[in-house]
Amino acid sequence: MNLRTAKVVRFHETGDASVLKIEDLPVSEPAVNELRIKVEAIGINRAEVMFRNGAYLEMPEFPSRLGYEAAGIVDAVGEQVTDYKPGDRVSTIPSFSMGQYGVYAEYAVVPVHAVTFCPQSLTVQQSAAIWMQYMTAYGALLVVGQLKRGQHVIITAASSSVGVAAIQIAKSVGAAVIATTRGNNKKQFLLDQGADQVITTDSEDLVARTMDITHEAGVELVFDPVGGPILNQLAEASAKGGRIIEYGALDAEPTPYPLFIALAKGLTIHGYTLFEITQDKIKLEDAKEFLLPLFEAGKLIPVIDKEFTFNQIQDSHRYMESNQQTGKIIVTV
Amino acid sequence: MNLRTAKVVRFHETGDASVLKIEDLPVSEPAVNELRIKVEAIGINRAEVMFRNGAYLEMPEFPSRLGYEAAGIVDAVGEQVTDYKPGDRVSTIPSFSMGQYGVYAEYAVVPVHAVTFCPQSLTVQQSAAIWMQYMTAYGALLVVGQLKRGQHVIITAASSSVGVAAIQIAKSVGAAVIATTRGNNKKQFLLDQGADQVITTDSEDLVARTMDITHEAGVELVFDPVGGPILNQLAEASAKGGRIIEYGALDAEPTPYPLFIALAKGLTIHGYTLFEITQDKIKLEDAKEFLLPLFEAGKLIPVIDKEFTFNQIQDSHRYMESNQQTGKIIVTV
Repeated sequence: MNLRTAKVVRFHETGDASVLKIEDLPVSEPAVNELRIKVEAIGINRAEVMFRNGAYLEMPEFPSRLGYEAAGIVDAVGEQVTDYKPGDRVSTIPSFSMGQYGVYAEYAVVPVHAVTFCPQSLTVQQSAAIWMQYMTAYGALLVVGQLKRGQHVIITAASSSVGVAAIQIAKSVGAAVIATTRGNNKKQFLLDQGADQVITTDSEDLVARTMDITHEAGVELVFDPVGGPILNQLAEASAKGGRIIEYGALDAEPTPYPLFIALAKGLTIHGYTLFEITQDKIKLEDAKEFLLPLFEAGKLIPVIDKEFTFNQIQDSHRYMESNQQTGKIIVTV
Repeated sequence: MNLRTAKVVRFHETGDASVLKIEDLPVSEPAVNELRIKVEAIGINRAEVMFRNGAYLEMPEFPSRLGYEAAGIVDAVGEQVTDYKPGDRVSTIPSFSMGQYGVYAEYAVVPVHAVTFCPQSLTVQQSAAIWMQYMTAYGALLVVGQLKRGQHVIITAASSSVGVAAIQIAKSVGAAVIATTRGNNKKQFLLDQGADQVITTDSEDLVARTMDITHEAGVELVFDPVGGPILNQLAEASAKGGRIIEYGALDAEPTPYPLFIALAKGLTIHGYTLFEITQDKIKLEDAKEFLLPLFEAGKLIPVIDKEFTFNQIQDSHRYMESNQQTGKIIVTV
């Protein structure tokens, strides 16, 4: 058993997608409070592209694994694991170091706290496309942002997997969604996902359109993974007492803090990652309790843009970097 | 009565202290829900210096009055004013437009919601030196910042009147205070006010000292009127989940938003003015209920640095701009 090997994606230096290597490595055994998954589908996230580039919150130690989201079948369990047994269909919630546990692999050992049963209503591909996006959006909009029925929320870069999840969650509580995207080509997709309004930032004035839509009141909440100079516009588009949640750094430009607008409006700007939810046992359980029934009921439906094979792992990253996708990129193992 | 005139400070253009002019103007009558105060003492605030410079949240319309804080005797009341009568000793809470109601004058008409009885334990000078500083500090530290016993708070520019009030309020709830000041000359003053630690930022490393003091944990709360590049250091000195309250813009340099630190630590940065408290009836009443007994009991004692006469109004502004003061600047009328 210990001599068995399987394919694992690792990288030995930061760089473009070509640094990702498929290697044969011994299949390791789960330790206490860990279990092993025979991976069937992997969800690809911007976080992994940034980690590969050396631009993520966590820095790789080489050779480094990567990957947060996998779905598959439990294959072995470590000591003290009682909630899962071999044969169970599970998926992973990003709540671990991806350098240590990275799930881009045929077999992945992960901590048991990062595992849930797959919703029965979803395919294995869809099950690898839920936790990063819905947990991130749920925690930001409903836990940190306290978004309420009738309030307005701006969701930037809205065609990303997290953006789509945020649209669906905001609509599920009765909020009005203003989605932004750069060009016109993703506008209909966003309307189809439930956005009430779409602002195409390449050709429209974000602040003027928002003030028009909100009758000059501004939005109560902003959910933004871009950062950089757009933060100032988002502050101008915010209501008095508004909350801005930054959850990424897609723009490489520095991000000026809009001090005077923040003082004048009493704005709160919160730096957010889903770890704020997943590393807090109570918040994590609350999140599962909120989300799982909505998956089972078909009220939250992950949108899969494109599937790649395991051998196309480099192409899956290149595709994400092309910014063509609308929804989730999946690698089937 | 309508022909009676009195002295009022106004300015007809933005600029240095010399734009402040003492003018004889008719004494106006209080309208509905207003009352008139025969002013005995005026508290001088940084907000008025910035307003005079055209660098405040509110822009002057010329000729413009100015001034937020006065204490004196009620002289006349408008219709529907039932809580106060001529002869009552009152002071004002900044919760109005200072261009409209500015209290740098021998007689000031103000809205009744902005008035309280003076604490009996305080002199009239001290009564003109409480609401801006203690209300600002109370709202930030206890309402927005939720500062608790045993937590650490960094108070920057701590020798200002708001800084001193913040030290006293933080100590009143059992928090540990790290006060910052540029040089050594105000260090003993800050220790005397109750600061547990003083960091002199001209010669000491703010982040290293804070991490040393907090055993590498960082501070739960920062209360900063400076902005500019120091915000990045304050973020580095913050604990995971820390809160930074910005309440001014003393540094004219742009303020970069520390995006990566905010993401990594889940930081919240809140733009704050005391209007968040004073324009909310419930919060305003809560604030008075919290603060008034502490004044009466001598647990919060306003520190007056220097008094000027009404004719020295320009000098009072110049003195504030010299940054020599430790505590409040008062003009006695």
